[in-house]
Amino acid sequence: MLRFAAIGLDHRHIYDLTAGLLAAGAECAGHDPETSDPRVLAGFRKRFPHVPAVTREMLLDDPSIGFIVLAAIPRDRAALAIEAMRRGKDVMVDKPGVTTAEQLAAIESAVRETGRIWSIALGRLTSPAVQVALEVAQSGELGRLVSLTSLAPHRLNRALRPDWFFDRDAYGGIINDIGVHSIDQFLAFANASDATIAASTIGCFGTEPQGFEDFAEIALRSPTMTGTMRLDWFTPDGLPDWGDGRLFLVGTEGTLELRKNLDIEGRAGGDHMFVANKKRTRHQDCSGMPVTYYRDFLDDVRDRTGRMLDGGRVFSVCRLALRCQAEAVRFTP
Amino acid sequence: MLRFAAIGLDHRHIYDLTAGLLAAGAECAGHDPETSDPRVLAGFRKRFPHVPAVTREMLLDDPSIGFIVLAAIPRDRAALAIEAMRRGKDVMVDKPGVTTAEQLAAIESAVRETGRIWSIALGRLTSPAVQVALEVAQSGELGRLVSLTSLAPHRLNRALRPDWFFDRDAYGGIINDIGVHSIDQFLAFANASDATIAASTIGCFGTEPQGFEDFAEIALRSPTMTGTMRLDWFTPDGLPDWGDGRLFLVGTEGTLELRKNLDIEGRAGGDHMFVANKKRTRHQDCSGMPVTYYRDFLDDVRDRTGRMLDGGRVFSVCRLALRCQAEAVRFTP
Repeated sequence: MLRFAAIGLDHRHIYDLTAGLLAAGAECAGHDPETSDPRVLAGFRKRFPHVPAVTREMLLDDPSIGFIVLAAIPRDRAALAIEAMRRGKDVMVDKPGVTTAEQLAAIESAVRETGRIWSIALGRLTSPAVQVALEVAQSGELGRLVSLTSLAPHRLNRALRPDWFFDRDAYGGIINDIGVHSIDQFLAFANASDATIAASTIGCFGTEPQGFEDFAEIALRSPTMTGTMRLDWFTPDGLPDWGDGRLFLVGTEGTLELRKNLDIEGRAGGDHMFVANKKRTRHQDCSGMPVTYYRDFLDDVRDRTGRMLDGGRVFSVCRLALRCQAEAVRFTP
Repeated sequence: MLRFAAIGLDHRHIYDLTAGLLAAGAECAGHDPETSDPRVLAGFRKRFPHVPAVTREMLLDDPSIGFIVLAAIPRDRAALAIEAMRRGKDVMVDKPGVTTAEQLAAIESAVRETGRIWSIALGRLTSPAVQVALEVAQSGELGRLVSLTSLAPHRLNRALRPDWFFDRDAYGGIINDIGVHSIDQFLAFANASDATIAASTIGCFGTEPQGFEDFAEIALRSPTMTGTMRLDWFTPDGLPDWGDGRLFLVGTEGTLELRKNLDIEGRAGGDHMFVANKKRTRHQDCSGMPVTYYRDFLDDVRDRTGRMLDGGRVFSVCRLALRCQAEAVRFTP
């Protein structure tokens, strides 16, 4: 059985990552009790009462621990990941994996030098609906893909957020933080390792504190298709989910829509797919489809066959997110 | 009773315009039998058997006719409209009203000199759902508007299309032709008379003949909000409507979605609105809501109070569409 440690309990995403790994058959050998937000630590202990608190140093020294899962403050993730890799551990990290280009370069070096796995748990990998949509696109049912449009609203949840959530240096900016999912998704559907930036905009529409990046829109181009991605922190309080995330694909012979989180005023649950092809329309509830990311990660930790290396795409995704962030035009009404 | 003539029976849109005016209480005094597409003329005669064929010259000379409705080949519409205005008629024209900046300038001069009405039957004006969405936005339920996203797929319907449909000079390009609706809609929600172009892209994804503009995407900025509009000719054959048109609004306190044409694999009919506000979500079937455009036009023809002049917004809309068309970056996979 593969043993791992949970380190950097600063973001609640650590709960899903840990739960996914446990469900896939790994054992959590311990959690690092250092945190910037005691509420996150308390939530972890409530969810995983059998996982002992162990100091970070002891966890990183323990040769029985094969990898760590990491949800520290984003700006600290790269240094922690590099430290873990240099001490022989693979790494699964919450997004964003890095907040600067320098951190990304250091991660790439560390991966090259140590041969360790560095995997970001991106939304594409953990979404049943996106996995099914990728299969539909690859099947040819939609013809050649022309365009992707992604809408990714998020709930601000101000009461739950620690100070670092509002500090751009800490999270790396809205595109680096939540746009990285959308950029990864576009490159996957475009089957491309990179894209050109047709436009990138970051908006500040008045969410406190002043200068908080509450909106962004990115237009990317692969050699074969276009993609436009909207990100924002404006999920209304009355929506019964953290965001009404959508994906729209246009192909030369079919179209596809995902309602990832919910079907507003419609069907129960999330992961709804709607396809129109040459013959008909169809709806599929994808919520029961398997998410193989955690199992694939564990297989890769065990047999080192490179599923998680993905031809280096994860580095391209981070690099592109950092570029979109850096090159964005600012919009303030 | 207001009498009008149907002139330029080249596009099937003449049917809806004529039907809307008849339903609003006008009388169709005659139709001009000149056409580039005998199928369109035959369809008109089948739908409106009581409307006599009269030569264009006689219709324009008839002092009992107050206005004309016009769906000629787009590049010919401006000259016909100007001719009609100079002969004392108001004009309701199918979109696009013009295909070049020179035509637009000539129309503006003719309107100024003759005092006639020149109104384009834009989608915003004839869509119950858009009219309701404008009311919701103006009510403040969504807070301050942040962003608009519009998806406007259209069915190519190759078998029905005359040659001029595939000739860019004849229709003025995809943004001028079908993007004018989306641009008008953005300016209405932004309550702005103009916008800056953040990005404009026109794609040729292989629809024959070579060079046919089958895709476009426009990103606009008003002083207060952003807007992104996608247009394409890729409605799949299996969709039971000419296009799954959508509108998404993000506000600081609420969001809104329109499914204009249909609710794919869902409810019957079109004009569906979904709102999430601070308290709850709600669905509204807007299909029964009144469309006042035709009645407003007739009132304006009668009492000259300027409803259709709209502060000159129609000229701004056409000018912006022509600029987006001219400045677009070309994308060919």
